[in-house]
Amino acid sequence: MEFFFNPRGIAVVGASPHPGKGGNIIISNLQKGYEGEIYPVTPRHQEVNGLKCYDHILAVPDPVDMAIVYVGAKLVPQIIRDCGKRGIGGVMLQSAGFSESGPEGAEIQAEIAETAAKAGVRIWGPNCMGLVDAVNKNVFSTVAPAIWSAGMTGGNVSLIVQSGMLAGAFLIDIMTHGGRGIAKACSIGNKMDVHECDILEYLLNDPDTGVIGLYLESIVDGPRFVSLCKNAAKPIVVLKGGKSAKGAQAAMSHTASLAGDGAIVSGALRQAGVIEADDFFQMMELCETLGAYPSLPAERQNRVAVLTYSGGAGIVSADFFESYGLVLGELNQEAIEMLGQVYPAWMKPDNPMDLWPAVIVNGTIRVYNQAVKAACFDPGIDAIFAHCFVGGFDLEPDLPAMARMSRQAGKPLVCWITGERKAVHQFQVEAHKLKVPVFHEVKRCVECLSALLNQPQKGAATGFSQAADEREKLLGLLDGHKGGLDEYESKRILKTLEVPIVSEEIVGSTDEALTAARALGFPVVMKGVDPEIIHKTEANLVRLDIASEDQVPGVYEELRASMGEQGRVLVQAQISGGLELIAGLVRDPQFGPCVMCGLGGVFAELIKDRVFAAAPLNHEDALALMGRLKSQELLNGFRGGDPVDRDALAGVLLGLSRLGMAAPTVSQVDINPLIVANGKPVAVDATIVVEDLELNPV
Amino acid sequence: MEFFFNPRGIAVVGASPHPGKGGNIIISNLQKGYEGEIYPVTPRHQEVNGLKCYDHILAVPDPVDMAIVYVGAKLVPQIIRDCGKRGIGGVMLQSAGFSESGPEGAEIQAEIAETAAKAGVRIWGPNCMGLVDAVNKNVFSTVAPAIWSAGMTGGNVSLIVQSGMLAGAFLIDIMTHGGRGIAKACSIGNKMDVHECDILEYLLNDPDTGVIGLYLESIVDGPRFVSLCKNAAKPIVVLKGGKSAKGAQAAMSHTASLAGDGAIVSGALRQAGVIEADDFFQMMELCETLGAYPSLPAERQNRVAVLTYSGGAGIVSADFFESYGLVLGELNQEAIEMLGQVYPAWMKPDNPMDLWPAVIVNGTIRVYNQAVKAACFDPGIDAIFAHCFVGGFDLEPDLPAMARMSRQAGKPLVCWITGERKAVHQFQVEAHKLKVPVFHEVKRCVECLSALLNQPQKGAATGFSQAADEREKLLGLLDGHKGGLDEYESKRILKTLEVPIVSEEIVGSTDEALTAARALGFPVVMKGVDPEIIHKTEANLVRLDIASEDQVPGVYEELRASMGEQGRVLVQAQISGGLELIAGLVRDPQFGPCVMCGLGGVFAELIKDRVFAAAPLNHEDALALMGRLKSQELLNGFRGGDPVDRDALAGVLLGLSRLGMAAPTVSQVDINPLIVANGKPVAVDATIVVEDLELNPV
Repeated sequence: MEFFFNPRGIAVVGASPHPGKGGNIIISNLQKGYEGEIYPVTPRHQEVNGLKCYDHILAVPDPVDMAIVYVGAKLVPQIIRDCGKRGIGGVMLQSAGFSESGPEGAEIQAEIAETAAKAGVRIWGPNCMGLVDAVNKNVFSTVAPAIWSAGMTGGNVSLIVQSGMLAGAFLIDIMTHGGRGIAKACSIGNKMDVHECDILEYLLNDPDTGVIGLYLESIVDGPRFVSLCKNAAKPIVVLKGGKSAKGAQAAMSHTASLAGDGAIVSGALRQAGVIEADDFFQMMELCETLGAYPSLPAERQNRVAVLTYSGGAGIVSADFFESYGLVLGELNQEAIEMLGQVYPAWMKPDNPMDLWPAVIVNGTIRVYNQAVKAACFDPGIDAIFAHCFVGGFDLEPDLPAMARMSRQAGKPLVCWITGERKAVHQFQVEAHKLKVPVFHEVKRCVECLSALLNQPQKGAATGFSQAADEREKLLGLLDGHKGGLDEYESKRILKTLEVPIVSEEIVGSTDEALTAARALGFPVVMKGVDPEIIHKTEANLVRLDIASEDQVPGVYEELRASMGEQGRVLVQAQISGGLELIAGLVRDPQFGPCVMCGLGGVFAELIKDRVFAAAPLNHEDALALMGRLKSQELLNGFRGGDPVDRDALAGVLLGLSRLGMAAPTVSQVDINPLIVANGKPVAVDATIVVEDLELNPV
Repeated sequence: MEFFFNPRGIAVVGASPHPGKGGNIIISNLQKGYEGEIYPVTPRHQEVNGLKCYDHILAVPDPVDMAIVYVGAKLVPQIIRDCGKRGIGGVMLQSAGFSESGPEGAEIQAEIAETAAKAGVRIWGPNCMGLVDAVNKNVFSTVAPAIWSAGMTGGNVSLIVQSGMLAGAFLIDIMTHGGRGIAKACSIGNKMDVHECDILEYLLNDPDTGVIGLYLESIVDGPRFVSLCKNAAKPIVVLKGGKSAKGAQAAMSHTASLAGDGAIVSGALRQAGVIEADDFFQMMELCETLGAYPSLPAERQNRVAVLTYSGGAGIVSADFFESYGLVLGELNQEAIEMLGQVYPAWMKPDNPMDLWPAVIVNGTIRVYNQAVKAACFDPGIDAIFAHCFVGGFDLEPDLPAMARMSRQAGKPLVCWITGERKAVHQFQVEAHKLKVPVFHEVKRCVECLSALLNQPQKGAATGFSQAADEREKLLGLLDGHKGGLDEYESKRILKTLEVPIVSEEIVGSTDEALTAARALGFPVVMKGVDPEIIHKTEANLVRLDIASEDQVPGVYEELRASMGEQGRVLVQAQISGGLELIAGLVRDPQFGPCVMCGLGGVFAELIKDRVFAAAPLNHEDALALMGRLKSQELLNGFRGGDPVDRDALAGVLLGLSRLGMAAPTVSQVDINPLIVANGKPVAVDATIVVEDLELNPV
C-alpha cells in the first residue's frame, strides 16, 4: 500500500486548469503540501497551475508510483491498462459514476476490476475523496480548499470513511472546529478493490497513527476485519452505518431471527476489542481521547476526581458516572489537606471538588493547579475530570500546568469547557495542542473518559483448533441432509461436538417406548419427531409430565396418529426447574459463522438478552461472550441453585463454533432450550439447518 | 412576582464604582438595558457610573419596586427590614455566604427568612445570578459583560436554573454559540423563599415565554410542581441534577437540599407531562425545538423525510429513527415525480433523499428547495430533517425558502449542519433567526425532532376525590399502630380501599385451620403471622402446596412452634402460575406519597421494571402508569393466559394513592406479590408501615 501513502511521484489524470473543478482542486491540493513530482495528464492543455502537462499517462517520466484519476467512467479501463504498462502500482479513482450510479456504472466498475487485476494495479475508490495526510501535508483529494484554512493540524487519529462526501465534509468540520488534528483520513468510496481491511492493516503499522476510527456501511471481509482488530495494538473505534436495516434472510431458526438490529455486528466488534460509536463526532472524540493517552498504568482503576467551579456541574457529572462505569474517587487525607490550603476554612474538601469558594479567595489558577496536584498525589485517584470556564468571571485555568502534572502522574486529564465562543475556541485549540481531550458537553466527556479507562484489553488472539477427524465425521453426518434436520438427528451431531445432550431414545413401538421410559426414569417427555415440523409445540407433538407407565402407550399412539403414522417418537428424560438458556449459530453475510448465547424461557422476549460473536472462538472468547449477558445474576445462581458451570457452557459454544467452521453448509443452529440443571447445561431440543452452498456463498 | 420581572425602579444595595466588582457589574448591566430608574445605595460613594448614590435604602425616591442586594450576609437582615418599611416588595439577594457556606450562613439565612416574612418582602436567592430578560434587555445580575457581546438575542425559551455559577456560565455559552436566544433566564440559587414553582407559575403566564427549561437540584414543593406542569399549556423540560446516589451526595453537600431517588423523580415528571433532559445543551436544544414549533397539526404522525447530500449521512440518521420513535415516511407518487424533476434519470427518488447526484446537476438551492417542496406536498410526511453543509463544495442551501415552505405546510424543519467553523456559525445564527432548530450532531437532531413530534399531550388534569368516610375508616383502622403491620392487618386495610385480596382466614386451632382449608379448597398456603417478622419466607413461616387435610394439623403446630406459640396462623387459598406483579407506596421527601407498580417474581431483580407516579392519581394516571412498564407483552397475556384487567389493576393503584393521601402516617406499603389470576390482580401478601408523623414531615 506504500504507493498510495508515500508515492514518489503522482500522475493526475483529468487535470484541469479551471479553479473549482475536481481536476484542478486535486492539483492545487498537491501543490500545497506534497513534496514529490506532480504530473498533470490531459491532452487538452499545455500547462495546469504552472505544471507541464502530459497528453498521455505513458508519457509521464519516472519516478511515478500512483495516479489520481478524475475522468468519466468510460475512459477509466484504458487508463488502468496504461497505468499497468507504465508500472504505476496504485490508482486512486476519485470520480463517481460507477456502481453507486446504477447498472451501467456497475458494469463499468466490474470491467475495471477485471482490468486492474490483470494489469496488477490496485484501485482505491471509486467515488471517494482519497487521502488527507495532515502530518505529512499530503492531500490526494478533491476535498475543498477550506481544509487548509485550519492549518492542516496533525494529530495521531487516523480515519477510514466509506462515504465520500461525508469524509470531506466531516474532515473540514472537525479540523476547523477547535483545532482538532488528524494523522490520515482515508475515504474509500465504493471499495471495489482496496477496502477497510487493507487500509486498517497499513494504519496499524503506520508510526503516525495512534488510534483508528472507521465509518463503515459494510464490512467486506468480516473474519479478516475481526482478526486484524483482535490483534491490533492500537485502539479502534467503529461507527457502523445501516445497522437498523433488517436482513432479508429467511429466519428459519430462532437464532437467525434474533440476529437483526445489528446484534451480530455489535457482537463481532465487541469480541474483537473494538469500541463502537453511534455518531460522527462521538467517534472522533472517542478516538482523540484514546489517542491522547496511549499508555496508561496497567494497575489503574476507574476512580475519577471531579474539579468544578459550580456545585451543579459536579452533580450532573457525577450523575453520569454510574451508568458509564466510573466512580468518584474518595480523597485521602493528604489530598484533603492539600485542598485545605486553598479552601476557605468553613469548607471541607470533598469529591466532586466544588472549587468556587476557593477560587473567590485564591483565584482560579492557584486553586485548579492545587486541585490537580492533590489528585495526582492521591493514589486513590486514576483520572481527572476538570470543568473549566473561559470568557469572563476570571476563571481561565493554567491548562499547560494542569496537563503537565497529569502526564507526569500518568493520570489522564479531560476537560469539560463552557464559556464565550471565541475564548472556548482558543481553549480548545490550546487543549488539542496539549493533547488534552476537551468537550463541550458533560455526557460526552464522561463517555470518552470511561472509554479510555475501561478500554478493552488488547493483545494477540490465541489460536483456534479443530481435530481433523471431527471435521470428517461432521461432514459425514451431514452428508445428504438438506433443510432442517429433526431434533434427534440434530442432537446426534451436536453430541459429536461434545455438547451435553438430554438422555433420550428414539422408539418404534409402545414396548420400546415403555422400556425407554423405565430406563430414563419418570417423569418423561415424549415428542413426535417429524423433520417437516420444526415447531413441535405449536404442532402439538410434545407431551410433558408423563408420570407413570400406564400413560406411555396412549401417548405413543396419539403422537403417531398426529404425524399421520409417518414420523418417529422420542422418549426423553424430563429436566425442569433449571435456568433456560438458548445457544445457536447463524451464518452472517459479513462475518460468516457467528455463535449466539442468550436467555431463554418465558421472559426471553422481554429481557432480550442475547449476545453474538464471530467464529472461530477460543475458550476465552466463549467465556467473554457469556460474560456479556445482562443476566449474570441468573448465571451465578438461579432460584438458589448452583451457578452455571461456565467452562461447560463454553464447551457448548465452542462446539457450535467448530461446527460453523467445519461445515459451510450449516446455515443455522438452535439449541433451545439449553437447560442448566445442577449447574450443567444440557441441550434439550435442537435444530440444525443445512443449506445448499450456492445459496449461501460466505 | 411582577416586582421582580417588571420593577418600576430598582435600588442596588452594595453598589460599587469599581469595575469588575459585583456591585458595579449589576449597575453596568442595568444601565445597558433597563429603562426604569436605578438607585445605587452605598454610604461610601457619591456617585457610581454617573448615577447619584443614596446612603440608605430608606432615602431612595419613588417609584422603586425591587432591590438587588449584593452585600455581606450579616448586613442583610436590616436591609430586608428597611425594604419592608420602604414598600419594596421584592429583594434579589445575589451575594453568597448563606446556607451553602455552612452552619453560620444557614443561621443567617433562617433569620432573613423570618425577617422577610414579617416585613412582607419576597426574597429571590441568595447565592444566585438573578434574572436575565433578553427580550426586554433587563439584566438584573452579576453575570459577566460577555453576555452582551452576543447582542442579547431574544427568543421564546425561558430557563430556571438552580445553580448560580452554572446559570451565568451556561447563559454566556448558549448566547455566544450560534446566536441562540432566550426570553428569561432565572437563577434562583438557595431558594430560601422564591422557588421554582413561583417562577414557573409566572413564566407559564408570561407572553414572551413559549417553553420553559429547568435545571433543578431539588424540588421544594413536589405536589405543586407536578400540578403546575400537568396543567401547563407550554412544554416544560427538566434536567434534574443529583439523581444518582453519588450525585445526590454531591447535592446535599452543595445546597443542603434533598435530591430524590431517580426513579421517583423521573416517574413524577413523566406523569406531569414533563420532558426530562440529562445534559445542559440537550435541555436547551430540546427547549428550542419545542419552542420553534409551538402548534403542530393535531393529526400529525411521526413520519420524517430525510434530505442529505451524502448517502452515509442518511443511513446514520435513519439508524437512530427506530430507537427514538420516528419513521422514514414513504414518499407518494407526486413527491417522487417532483424529485424526478431534479434527479438524474438513472436515480429513483427514495427516502432518505440522497440528493448529491441531483445537486451535481442542478445545484444545491434548486434541489434542496424542490425536496422540501415535495415533502411539504406529500401527506405521508410530517416533518423534514435536512442535512446541510456550508463552507465549501458549493452546498449552501436557501434556508429562508426552506423554512418558509415548512411553516406554510405545518411540517417542522430541523437541520443537521456540518462544515467549516465560520460558515457553520453564520448558518446557526441565521437558522435561529428563522426559528429553525439546528444541530451539530445527528443523534441530538433526531432526539429533539422526536421530542417535538412525540411530545406528551398537555391538558387540564382531572380531579381527585376521596369519600369522606373512607378517610375516617382508614384513620380508625390505623389508629394505635406503629411500625410494620402484619400481613393480615395490612390486607384488611387494603380491602377497605377495594384492593382485591386473596381468600384467607386467621385460625386459632387445628380445627379452625381444617375448616378454613376445606372452605378455601386445596391446595392451600399456611403462614405464621408475627408482626415482628416482615420477611416470613426467610423466617420459614410460609408453607406452600398443602394438598390435603392430613397435612394441616402438623403444619399448624409447626408454625405455632416456630413463633414460640406467640403469633397467629393464616390459611390462604393458593394462587399460582399467574403473572407476579408488585405494587406499593412510598413517601418521598419532595413529591409526598408516590405509587409504584412493577414486575415481581424471580426475574424482577434482573428486569428492574418499576414505575412511579406522585399521588394523587386519577384513573387515567393509573392507566398511564402501568403503560410505562416495559413488560407490556406480559401484561397483555402471560404464558398464553388472559391479559391483565387494566381497570382492575388501576383500582389497586388508586387504592394505594387514596391511602397515601388520607393517612400521612403511612410511610410505605408493599403489595408483593400481586398475582394476576385469570386477568385479575389479587394481593397475596402485603405490608403497611406506619411511622410517627414527626419523623416524616412531608
